[in-house]
Amino acid sequence: MLRHIIFFNAFCVFFAASFSIVKPGPTYPPTKGAIWPRPHEQTKSDTYYKLVPDSFTITEKGQTCDILKAAIERYTNVLKNTYLIADTHSKKLANLNVNYPNTTEDDVNYKGTLQELQVTLSAPCETYPHLDMDEKYSLEVAAVSTLKSDSIWGALRGLETFAQLFYMSDGYKSVLINTTQIVDYPKYKHRGLLIDTSRHYLPISTILKTLDALEINKMNVLHWHIVDDQSFPYQSDVFPQLSLAAYDPTMVYTAADISQIVNYARDRGIRVLPEFDVPGHTSSWGVAYPSILTTCYRFGESIGLGPMDPTNNMTYKVISDLFNEVQGRFPDKYIHVGGDEVELDCWSSNAAIRKFMEEHNMTETSELHSLFMTNVIPLLGDRSKPIVWQEVFDEGVTLPSGSIVQVWKNIEASEMVNILNAGHKVIYSASWYLDHLSTGGDWFKYYEVDPRNTVNGYVDKIKESDILGGEACMWAEVVDETNMISRVWPRASAVAEALWSGYTSNTADGPYRRWYRYSRNPDHELSCRMEEHACRMNRRGVRAQPPNYPGFCITGN
Amino acid sequence: MLRHIIFFNAFCVFFAASFSIVKPGPTYPPTKGAIWPRPHEQTKSDTYYKLVPDSFTITEKGQTCDILKAAIERYTNVLKNTYLIADTHSKKLANLNVNYPNTTEDDVNYKGTLQELQVTLSAPCETYPHLDMDEKYSLEVAAVSTLKSDSIWGALRGLETFAQLFYMSDGYKSVLINTTQIVDYPKYKHRGLLIDTSRHYLPISTILKTLDALEINKMNVLHWHIVDDQSFPYQSDVFPQLSLAAYDPTMVYTAADISQIVNYARDRGIRVLPEFDVPGHTSSWGVAYPSILTTCYRFGESIGLGPMDPTNNMTYKVISDLFNEVQGRFPDKYIHVGGDEVELDCWSSNAAIRKFMEEHNMTETSELHSLFMTNVIPLLGDRSKPIVWQEVFDEGVTLPSGSIVQVWKNIEASEMVNILNAGHKVIYSASWYLDHLSTGGDWFKYYEVDPRNTVNGYVDKIKESDILGGEACMWAEVVDETNMISRVWPRASAVAEALWSGYTSNTADGPYRRWYRYSRNPDHELSCRMEEHACRMNRRGVRAQPPNYPGFCITGN
Repeated sequence: MLRHIIFFNAFCVFFAASFSIVKPGPTYPPTKGAIWPRPHEQTKSDTYYKLVPDSFTITEKGQTCDILKAAIERYTNVLKNTYLIADTHSKKLANLNVNYPNTTEDDVNYKGTLQELQVTLSAPCETYPHLDMDEKYSLEVAAVSTLKSDSIWGALRGLETFAQLFYMSDGYKSVLINTTQIVDYPKYKHRGLLIDTSRHYLPISTILKTLDALEINKMNVLHWHIVDDQSFPYQSDVFPQLSLAAYDPTMVYTAADISQIVNYARDRGIRVLPEFDVPGHTSSWGVAYPSILTTCYRFGESIGLGPMDPTNNMTYKVISDLFNEVQGRFPDKYIHVGGDEVELDCWSSNAAIRKFMEEHNMTETSELHSLFMTNVIPLLGDRSKPIVWQEVFDEGVTLPSGSIVQVWKNIEASEMVNILNAGHKVIYSASWYLDHLSTGGDWFKYYEVDPRNTVNGYVDKIKESDILGGEACMWAEVVDETNMISRVWPRASAVAEALWSGYTSNTADGPYRRWYRYSRNPDHELSCRMEEHACRMNRRGVRAQPPNYPGFCITGN
Repeated sequence: MLRHIIFFNAFCVFFAASFSIVKPGPTYPPTKGAIWPRPHEQTKSDTYYKLVPDSFTITEKGQTCDILKAAIERYTNVLKNTYLIADTHSKKLANLNVNYPNTTEDDVNYKGTLQELQVTLSAPCETYPHLDMDEKYSLEVAAVSTLKSDSIWGALRGLETFAQLFYMSDGYKSVLINTTQIVDYPKYKHRGLLIDTSRHYLPISTILKTLDALEINKMNVLHWHIVDDQSFPYQSDVFPQLSLAAYDPTMVYTAADISQIVNYARDRGIRVLPEFDVPGHTSSWGVAYPSILTTCYRFGESIGLGPMDPTNNMTYKVISDLFNEVQGRFPDKYIHVGGDEVELDCWSSNAAIRKFMEEHNMTETSELHSLFMTNVIPLLGDRSKPIVWQEVFDEGVTLPSGSIVQVWKNIEASEMVNILNAGHKVIYSASWYLDHLSTGGDWFKYYEVDPRNTVNGYVDKIKESDILGGEACMWAEVVDETNMISRVWPRASAVAEALWSGYTSNTADGPYRRWYRYSRNPDHELSCRMEEHACRMNRRGVRAQPPNYPGFCITGN
């Protein structure tokens, strides 16, 4: 029924065609063993090997550590499970008396079963992933395959690539891998997904599943927007009353929960970046500590509590002690302190705050925001550096050197150019708000922007590299455990590829861009790769929604 | 981060407000025991009873049958499970040393534990649900409650209502029900959901889950668009080759699968309406039988196979034999024969068909469509009546009396007025395409159209009643088992209520309608009811997505 809206043949528009041919079968047949995100360099041969898990091992040939050992066990299981899916399907076909011949038996390109993957890690493991971690690796697939990296994080990325090279053949009965050489590393070093556990609480299991998906997509940051106006699920020991603003006493994240999440992420080379957004988006803090919020007025009447009170010493005391605790729970060297969407007009509606402004010769409420942030950022001390939303920069707050500004409102270059010229670094999110929905395969629009390309010509190359990467953002007003995984994936996979590969869809900037957004992706190969990748995620337990158009995925269920 | 887009206070717009207050907690606190869809007549008292499953029974006081017995067992389990969720939560709170007092103990309104529900069915059961089935019931909740109906179908609806009256209290520790009287019946007799198993195959389990959801929403038709261009998962005995066009040999619906689905639906008072869409949307038929499709030409070159060939006797033979088999598998008295989006220009591109037209004095290809349908509809014989998409009517096909036309393209009155004036009946879907997405709680727009209200004043009341109801349509280009349930529900619940209750949101037609669509639903009570209803579905295993804005649901997980 949708055919006339989105289903006509992509090439028809170039003719004066008045009807369309829809062929049976998937619109985009999935690729076989294409890597996501696309590697830096890859060569691939027609020769191939078969996977038989019982006669295959992954071995450590260099340095090793608990992270590598856990990863080898994990990926050994991924391969076993891939084999099991094919085996299950093979048995179903036999029950149906369907017989697909095994093409491998007499094929000149068939080189036998895969024997071993040797992992050579040439340096000791680091304890936690970090902004400047090395993710480079090289991989050669042969009967005895080799994966080399100077870093545990590169070894993890290489194992993921290795697992993705396998594909099913012969009617989904066999698992094969082609002879391949890869050298790979990311374009951007910060490749994240923002989750929001305040608008809807997410169970630990959903957060761990999200980390599984990040690993599959070679993303390396979970930006955890943990509290906001609506609820405060972080359970503090120094201020246990704060989580009275959890939706329910059972809907909290304890120190043990956070430790579990941080370690699970670490094992996958993923940083967990906590955000405690101040001074706006803080209504929930007021359930236990109303005095640190500002009373807002309208027509002289109090209408409720707004942003934090920047004139109250208690405000800073609470933030300071809480940050100190948060620094102990999250090993990352950055803390996101928010700073977005502060209701400055609430401050000016309050007589006591207006008096404070007069006493301090302030004429604009943005000066209060500046004062607030100038007070808050030093509370991080030497243990953490700040990340802030762009409003903090826009409102003229003096940020310490090395601060990171997250751009979410402006798709154009000017905002980033200004931030870079002021000596700060940038994380870009403006094009990648996953809560903004449109019908169908909207993920290809995420390729339209490569953050550094945007500022190209406006700043020099060194400054360009201060754009560290970006994040897809899944604000949780309309998602919870029922739909978050399927709505984020595989849409965020497009962001993952834009950031790792610097890949821009070859037609993203063409004249038909806007038109294509609402029709179909003209980059056929990209869509076919995405079909395989979404199916791959499903086979590995991440229930990604279908990316494009009609098709199917054999998952063994 | 979305606050400025959708999160300001709904009433602020009437002031010149420049800032908003966001209170902690859910945006729409759920109601407690509100029925969905809203019943025809309900009175409710402050007095209430407690549910203790071990001391409560549902008993049959009148006629009975296997459908009623199965339903009583099913709803007994629903109540037990509701109790179990509260009990599990109570234990979790105890482990956390959280103590909510039990308000019932000393409350003057508390009337003790609920003892019994007596179900008085005053007529023998029918075998299958049908278009004209009686769904009326009356219910009185007291220590010994009574449910009365003249029809098994009404009894099923009453049991659902009874189950929905229970709610959790005292920090989700107790399950209560208020003294209530209800007389209820639907405004529209056809209240359906279309699913599409061609664009993506749906496992049987997903279809059964969908039937669970239809039951909870008092919807009574599963419109099963079983095959289309992309795949043919229906496994035929007369034409076993047809399902060579299934995506995979394992992705089919056998006679046994269909029987399971039909019986599961019957037990819930739900009709299963099969659609075999002809002559367009039939590419998959051509995998086994290319000769029944039309070869299309462009610039004199064949470009592939288009709609069925209306000039080929074989076409009608295949349809006739297949319909005969389908009639045996689906007991419903209607078969949907499609007729939408026929590529008429393919027909005119084909020289043999142009010759046929000349020989039969046809000047318009729509006459071929008319000829085709005129040939096909009698193939149903006396066993089934046809339902067709609106194009069949629009293109002037002479339909037998009592035919039903499904309107999907025109939201305005004129199309329905024309169909009614021609003596046909209408099913309305034009406002309810669930595959069309927009950000956030888009379900309240589904209340904007009440189909009969649309034609009010254009036709008389008798003709108005020939609008039999409507269907929400979930075309499956972009959904499969990963996301179908969460994307359909609770959005289709709004359609269910529009059709059962004839409820139109009190602000749906207000001057701010368009504005509200993109902001928040101004009908606060409706949104609070929807919050409860979505949570109720989750508690009953239907993983509906969050309907609105920030909030939470205690499910016992």
